[in-house]
Amino acid sequence: MASEQKQGRSPELRKDWVTNRWVIFSPARAKRPSDFKYKSPATNTTADQIQDGCPFCLGHEHLCAPEIFRVPTSSDPDWKIRVIQNLYPALDRTLNDPIAVAPNPNLNGVEVLGGFGFHDVVIETPFHSLQLSDLSSQQISEVLFAYKNRILQLAAHSSIHYVQVFKNHGASAGASLSHSHSQIIGLPIVPPNVSARNDSMKQYFNETGKCSVCEIQVKELLIDESTHFISIVPFAATFPFEIWIIPRDHSSHFHQLDEAEAVDLGGLLKLMLRKMASQLNNPPFNFMIHTSPLRVTDPQLPYIHWFLQIIPQLTVVAGFEMATGCYINPVFPEDAAKVLREVPNPE
Amino acid sequence: MASEQKQGRSPELRKDWVTNRWVIFSPARAKRPSDFKYKSPATNTTADQIQDGCPFCLGHEHLCAPEIFRVPTSSDPDWKIRVIQNLYPALDRTLNDPIAVAPNPNLNGVEVLGGFGFHDVVIETPFHSLQLSDLSSQQISEVLFAYKNRILQLAAHSSIHYVQVFKNHGASAGASLSHSHSQIIGLPIVPPNVSARNDSMKQYFNETGKCSVCEIQVKELLIDESTHFISIVPFAATFPFEIWIIPRDHSSHFHQLDEAEAVDLGGLLKLMLRKMASQLNNPPFNFMIHTSPLRVTDPQLPYIHWFLQIIPQLTVVAGFEMATGCYINPVFPEDAAKVLREVPNPE
Repeated sequence: MASEQKQGRSPELRKDWVTNRWVIFSPARAKRPSDFKYKSPATNTTADQIQDGCPFCLGHEHLCAPEIFRVPTSSDPDWKIRVIQNLYPALDRTLNDPIAVAPNPNLNGVEVLGGFGFHDVVIETPFHSLQLSDLSSQQISEVLFAYKNRILQLAAHSSIHYVQVFKNHGASAGASLSHSHSQIIGLPIVPPNVSARNDSMKQYFNETGKCSVCEIQVKELLIDESTHFISIVPFAATFPFEIWIIPRDHSSHFHQLDEAEAVDLGGLLKLMLRKMASQLNNPPFNFMIHTSPLRVTDPQLPYIHWFLQIIPQLTVVAGFEMATGCYINPVFPEDAAKVLREVPNPE
Repeated sequence: MASEQKQGRSPELRKDWVTNRWVIFSPARAKRPSDFKYKSPATNTTADQIQDGCPFCLGHEHLCAPEIFRVPTSSDPDWKIRVIQNLYPALDRTLNDPIAVAPNPNLNGVEVLGGFGFHDVVIETPFHSLQLSDLSSQQISEVLFAYKNRILQLAAHSSIHYVQVFKNHGASAGASLSHSHSQIIGLPIVPPNVSARNDSMKQYFNETGKCSVCEIQVKELLIDESTHFISIVPFAATFPFEIWIIPRDHSSHFHQLDEAEAVDLGGLLKLMLRKMASQLNNPPFNFMIHTSPLRVTDPQLPYIHWFLQIIPQLTVVAGFEMATGCYINPVFPEDAAKVLREVPNPE
């Protein structure tokens, strides 16, 4: 079967209009799509509800950097979610502004900004043994609402131009603590991938009058759908079994999410994480929310469409990808979508 | 000491004119630069000269995909270097051309090319127990000349627009075989990072009339130098202890290298690989040759300057980097350069 499939298909280069990135689809390097598995489970989580020494567990709040807010908002010690400062922040919230650093006379041709910004952590549950996908749709919606509320706070700082929400799950995906958490970084710049994505979406809009994400034809790429969202493997997926969850109706900012949409998204996100874990042997993964810059102008809104991207870590990013920015994906997206569509809902 | 150093330095965002990429330098996340070590050695290479089952060892040529050429060029079975086809190529050399694939009526807003291209392997030594940095400067120069000669062959194909030479060392850096080798991919497109780099170098040239690489002020960033090359940690290094080896005299194409320059480069490359292995505990690494596209026009030559980039794998690329294209580097380049400068030459 595998060899028949391989013989039937030549490699392809694909570029789509959202990421503006070329991907090489290379069936000669593939196992059958359904044979793709992570080699060992990512989590070493114990079954203990509370783990000694874990700063994110209930009752260990004193081991953490300062809290920003908790859910519920009361000072009830039985919290469900905590948003705290990162103890090892990439950026410094105490600098007042992204003031240009004095140029070094020994260096030229360079731009330097002071590292002003915010680096926060969202502890998604007080209990060590639970992963995000173990929570109910309602509970996941509260995590999504914590993201939203923190973005709205960061948007009040006029020097913050972009807020990146992301989750690293598993050590090889960058998670230094196994207790389920995600991160929020408020940046004094619009980062390059965001600018590139917006430029690409703008170009499509200028040429067609339509939003490139609204226009995605999902037939062969669809995994599942809910009232307000669809989940697909994108046509030019950078990584095998990459998943995008996209709002059906055009929306530029993740933080426009309302409560009904959040519960609906929570359910679809839970389903995607469970299908991925079940099919791919609980791989390490990252998810990222790709939203609009904060200081967007009205003419930009029609072509910027937010979405959530999930990437299971099944392949290694090596010299070729780092050098060229061109990725080699051994699994065609239509095949990955079919595999994920057909995984039974793992209750 | 570590805490004094941390208190003395705030995070910085830096962007340079070659890569046009923002990097966050974040000392709060750092150990002392000299404490950075890879946790376990990358190589599981046995001391055997010839290893059973290794297709790249002398005498095992029949286990490989077809040979393109060998060094010396005779059919002498005692070869020093072999350039062969990759048995699992990312692209298909038998497709005649990058013919556009028929558009799929279920998909739109996408670009597709047939996956025409070349994916070759350079076996750097017949002996399993040797790494590239174990070879003499002269022997390394012959590997560099094999790259050059293969690039010149690929340049004869009018549909090939860029040739990426790269080396993955160690499994976690993407090397699937431990026998020392590098790879060459001939692409039917100019990849996005190459276009972005050239655009950035062009912008600097338009603004200043000078080549951005010729203009790099190396004082605090210099690691070492040779007759024709310098080695530095770049001002906005994406990764800790990243190294660039740059020709002193302006040159756009790696394949313009002459024999004297190749021996000189071989010596400096060997020194950098040995210093890196000695200081950082033999980490997995990648190196990449960043050269000009093949079909470059004369007006582009004054601002495109080739260089070789070495990246030790000491950190994990996670959700934030994938989402934003913005990297977090815990080691300031001036500090990394000082550490590498002061490592004794490990003879």
